[in-house]
Amino acid sequence: MLRYNEAEAIAKDIGALACRSKIEEIVDGICKEGYDNIFFIGVGGTLAYAWTMENIVKPASSIKIYVEHAADFNTLGNKNFGKNSIVIVESASGDTKEVVESVEKCHKVGAKVIGIIDKLGTPLAGSVDYLINSTGGGLYKWYAIMLRFMFNNGEFPAYDLFWSQMSNMPAALVEVVKKADEPAAEFAKKYCDEPFQYLIGAGNTWGVAYSYAMCLMEEMLWMKTKSITAGDWFHGCLEVCDRDTSVIVFCGEDGARVETDRVLAFAPRITRKLTVFDTADYELPVNKEFRGLVSPMVMWAVCNRLTAHLEDELKHPSEIRRYYRQLKY
Amino acid sequence: MLRYNEAEAIAKDIGALACRSKIEEIVDGICKEGYDNIFFIGVGGTLAYAWTMENIVKPASSIKIYVEHAADFNTLGNKNFGKNSIVIVESASGDTKEVVESVEKCHKVGAKVIGIIDKLGTPLAGSVDYLINSTGGGLYKWYAIMLRFMFNNGEFPAYDLFWSQMSNMPAALVEVVKKADEPAAEFAKKYCDEPFQYLIGAGNTWGVAYSYAMCLMEEMLWMKTKSITAGDWFHGCLEVCDRDTSVIVFCGEDGARVETDRVLAFAPRITRKLTVFDTADYELPVNKEFRGLVSPMVMWAVCNRLTAHLEDELKHPSEIRRYYRQLKY
Repeated sequence: MLRYNEAEAIAKDIGALACRSKIEEIVDGICKEGYDNIFFIGVGGTLAYAWTMENIVKPASSIKIYVEHAADFNTLGNKNFGKNSIVIVESASGDTKEVVESVEKCHKVGAKVIGIIDKLGTPLAGSVDYLINSTGGGLYKWYAIMLRFMFNNGEFPAYDLFWSQMSNMPAALVEVVKKADEPAAEFAKKYCDEPFQYLIGAGNTWGVAYSYAMCLMEEMLWMKTKSITAGDWFHGCLEVCDRDTSVIVFCGEDGARVETDRVLAFAPRITRKLTVFDTADYELPVNKEFRGLVSPMVMWAVCNRLTAHLEDELKHPSEIRRYYRQLKY
Repeated sequence: MLRYNEAEAIAKDIGALACRSKIEEIVDGICKEGYDNIFFIGVGGTLAYAWTMENIVKPASSIKIYVEHAADFNTLGNKNFGKNSIVIVESASGDTKEVVESVEKCHKVGAKVIGIIDKLGTPLAGSVDYLINSTGGGLYKWYAIMLRFMFNNGEFPAYDLFWSQMSNMPAALVEVVKKADEPAAEFAKKYCDEPFQYLIGAGNTWGVAYSYAMCLMEEMLWMKTKSITAGDWFHGCLEVCDRDTSVIVFCGEDGARVETDRVLAFAPRITRKLTVFDTADYELPVNKEFRGLVSPMVMWAVCNRLTAHLEDELKHPSEIRRYYRQLKY
């Protein structure tokens, strides 16, 4: 398969899964000491990961969580933040400028920071209070953290069953990738040159749609996009769609499924260029009741193929940046 | 001035300001009884108003607020919602489908709903527990509600001074509209035919940017847009901008000002089509420390002129809808 190293993908996921015992130790310790609330602080793709988690935690947990853009947290702040807040940050590079500043601000107040940091020897790897380190597989680590907080809060009793099934997820996601290859290739061939792409998600696939549009299509592939929630698409954005507008819907299986279904029921009336990626199309090694929970992981596996084929069709290597980390700003 | 009725604009604002005494009575009663948290539930433009309020309340108040898209609230829900939650909804039409459903859901749980509803004799005007009714001037009513909650929480001691100055705001906003007319006309003439508009906001102008892009440019003018926070523009979105990309920055004067300033410092290096609308350009009848707080009102007054001139240049009457409330979906 184009630009896919199966062994490497599995190794990354297994590495991420292996972080769980350390994560449990960290979270159990925090819960024993007590905390007021949890702040997810991120930028771009990590902000979108935080939204994914928010959409998982919010319907099922009374834990007070706050999602903050690091730049907003640094400038505006949040009056509910304090020394008994727990902060979670993620940074693959380990040196995201705004996040480095946020962690400094947290430490001034006395709050503790859990960091999902891929690169050791970086400012963030050195400054967070609890370091979670492996390469890739970010969502496994987010899930391990938040589901443990929920379990300790009496809210996710299926914890052990869920994780016993998750050990089969790395291999299952390889199969997702393989099955998604053809539809992704077809999308890329048909629509890579569209002047504009609309990406729609809902619930825990909203973060995937936002991040895929911005971090992959815009940043890495220089494609113009707008991401929009299924709920809000009906409140303005639909009006600019006509028969030649490319609309991509990311359908997951959580409680917000009915919202993307509403788009699927209407969009074919107004565009000929509708593409649907649906996590329900893929076999997974987990119980039915967990499928919604893991939908973001499945969707990201599908996105892996989209990027590979778009890159190829556009003849635009995804490593190129015009400005990002190339210039001072 | 094109499509502007000064007397009507002032009358709407004065009507909205006049709601304050009723609002104080409502909020004082709620505070006396006690409440757990406040839910802003909306869709599209009213969701964006809620974000505006969130960015005002969050840095300055320990009140627990939650902003929910009505469709998400109806499907996913929020575990922190309960009978002691106070809900705020807004609907000009009074019959927004998802919001009607949300209010029913709230009542089933026993929570009380404050409704900013412009049209009497509508489902929402009939179903909310506390009705705030006048035509237009939505933000005055939002401010009256939330600043009273904050005042009662010991967080906005300048309450009386602020409102004494706000009585001069309707006339001042007319002057803003007049002064903004020329730059808005210039923007419309130059850029109405651009294939794509980027709208950037930060802090309490983010909601304005989001809503102006979607509810006005997309829904009413059929222009293609992407709205993005100043903070996140630097994390992907900037990469698709080149010298021919129209970028509009909404600069307010709250704590997030430094975030839009960062865009202004960099964007001229990569685009020739940068337009800045800045609330600091306008005289206001309020103390310096209140300017940031009222920035969204000022920006919406500027937007009034943008719409008038875009409508005229595009020869696209803003009342036309293709699908919105024309078709079933």
